[in-house]
Amino acid sequence: MNYDNYLEDKRILIEQSLDEYLPNAETIPNHIHKSMRHSVFAGGKRLRPVLTLITGEFFGTKEDELLPFACAIEMIHTYSLIHDDLPALDNDDKRRGKPTNHVIYGEDIAILAGDALLNYSFELMLESSLNYKYPYIGLKAAREISKASGTSGMIGGQVVDLEMEKNRNANIENVSFIHENKTGALFNASVRAGAIIGEASSNDLNNITNYAQKLGLAFQVVDDILDIKGDEQKLGKSLGKDEESDKATYPKLIGLKESEQYAQKLYNEAINSISTYGEKAEPLRKIANKLVNRES
Amino acid sequence: MNYDNYLEDKRILIEQSLDEYLPNAETIPNHIHKSMRHSVFAGGKRLRPVLTLITGEFFGTKEDELLPFACAIEMIHTYSLIHDDLPALDNDDKRRGKPTNHVIYGEDIAILAGDALLNYSFELMLESSLNYKYPYIGLKAAREISKASGTSGMIGGQVVDLEMEKNRNANIENVSFIHENKTGALFNASVRAGAIIGEASSNDLNNITNYAQKLGLAFQVVDDILDIKGDEQKLGKSLGKDEESDKATYPKLIGLKESEQYAQKLYNEAINSISTYGEKAEPLRKIANKLVNRES
Repeated sequence: MNYDNYLEDKRILIEQSLDEYLPNAETIPNHIHKSMRHSVFAGGKRLRPVLTLITGEFFGTKEDELLPFACAIEMIHTYSLIHDDLPALDNDDKRRGKPTNHVIYGEDIAILAGDALLNYSFELMLESSLNYKYPYIGLKAAREISKASGTSGMIGGQVVDLEMEKNRNANIENVSFIHENKTGALFNASVRAGAIIGEASSNDLNNITNYAQKLGLAFQVVDDILDIKGDEQKLGKSLGKDEESDKATYPKLIGLKESEQYAQKLYNEAINSISTYGEKAEPLRKIANKLVNRES
Repeated sequence: MNYDNYLEDKRILIEQSLDEYLPNAETIPNHIHKSMRHSVFAGGKRLRPVLTLITGEFFGTKEDELLPFACAIEMIHTYSLIHDDLPALDNDDKRRGKPTNHVIYGEDIAILAGDALLNYSFELMLESSLNYKYPYIGLKAAREISKASGTSGMIGGQVVDLEMEKNRNANIENVSFIHENKTGALFNASVRAGAIIGEASSNDLNNITNYAQKLGLAFQVVDDILDIKGDEQKLGKSLGKDEESDKATYPKLIGLKESEQYAQKLYNEAINSISTYGEKAEPLRKIANKLVNRES
């Protein structure tokens, strides 16, 4: 089986499903729906929702039961980017080579578009759970996602990130906390939600959680590395921004070469966590490899 | 039975439950939890959650099954106020006589505190539904609330409100749309969620929905009237702000006296919707009366 195509097919399916689920750009009030769609379709890699799909399929669940949850996670990720980019937070006017939401739609609509995406992600998960044979399973997956995106997860990481930027005295523990929460938690939930919907055993859930945690951290370490040595064109953003803003990153705190070694170590640990799963787990290995060796 | 005490007891129960449910102010990162708590405990009247409680009890549900949903609605209401008050939206530095969230915690934290309250409201509803005997019922109530707070409800109303402020040519249809969505939808969901959890029949759900819709609109018309003739001290905000900002309101569009008559008419219609329910529905009548004849 060609797993490159497999992953690409999943990505395309996510694109199509997001388009289907989101309110039409003509639906009144259309301004907000256009704004939501602008950011959702601004060129994300769809790593999180693809992880939900391939994990759920690994545990034997059909695509159509996974898609609402996969897309809900991508909407939550997108809302967090819209709010992160606001002048009151990171003040970024470009993301993935395109103007950020508030630059086009104004800060007021950008704030509400973020709110609406978060709200809609739950609407979608609740609606889908009601149509499940066992609503209980959908509920469990939605709870997992809600915990990961709140103050004990993603938002918690955003808050500490803001505090560190102001204090400028972050140590490796702070950076780990930020990464584990700001990006790691939702990454983890993407994988776990697929396993929960697939009714994985507790042993399998442990293995897959370990895989997700190592992978999420590796993803973030690579992100820090790419900010230094990436290709500006491919990344679609200005490089060296972290350094310029004196932001605490892995390369800054432990060195560039050490960061590359650390990313590799985390990748190996992720792969080892699923070593007993044989051929069927190949998409999980493939996406891990892609993610660690990416150029943008 | 003294229904004044009954309503006041419910309000106190909501205060206590909000305090129990919300993350402790010392929980790390504590800055965001303090910020969330600041706005939740800034003196709200708790009309929405009390409506959920008394409607649910009318349909025979116990308090502890209703409280998570009642409090989730109050958190959603609070988050919408935090974001509405931001400089990019209404730019209000005072609400209920107290400094608004961003004035104390900064815009960045205020944005994230709003996000966190919305997120947490769903976390709470999902967690509670999982503990229900029939998770399906909790799911249905949570879906009702999610629809009311999204772009087809509250956020939709906020967007049109912003547009009207910019255009300054709002007519009575626009004002109705804003009221029905910005405040009406969540008001409606507060009542309907109680009825859904109470497994009301479709006929009862129709009656109670009619009650909620008339009441929600009456509430908003009274709000507009109070902005002109209310007591600044009791309201805890500067009066005449609507007029000053040339905002389209009922008194401005149909006249003050006519607005008062309209509020009374809506109140009568709300009461008529539940006229067959006898003594047991007295709390629903009492709160309607309180709400229309309030001074703040």
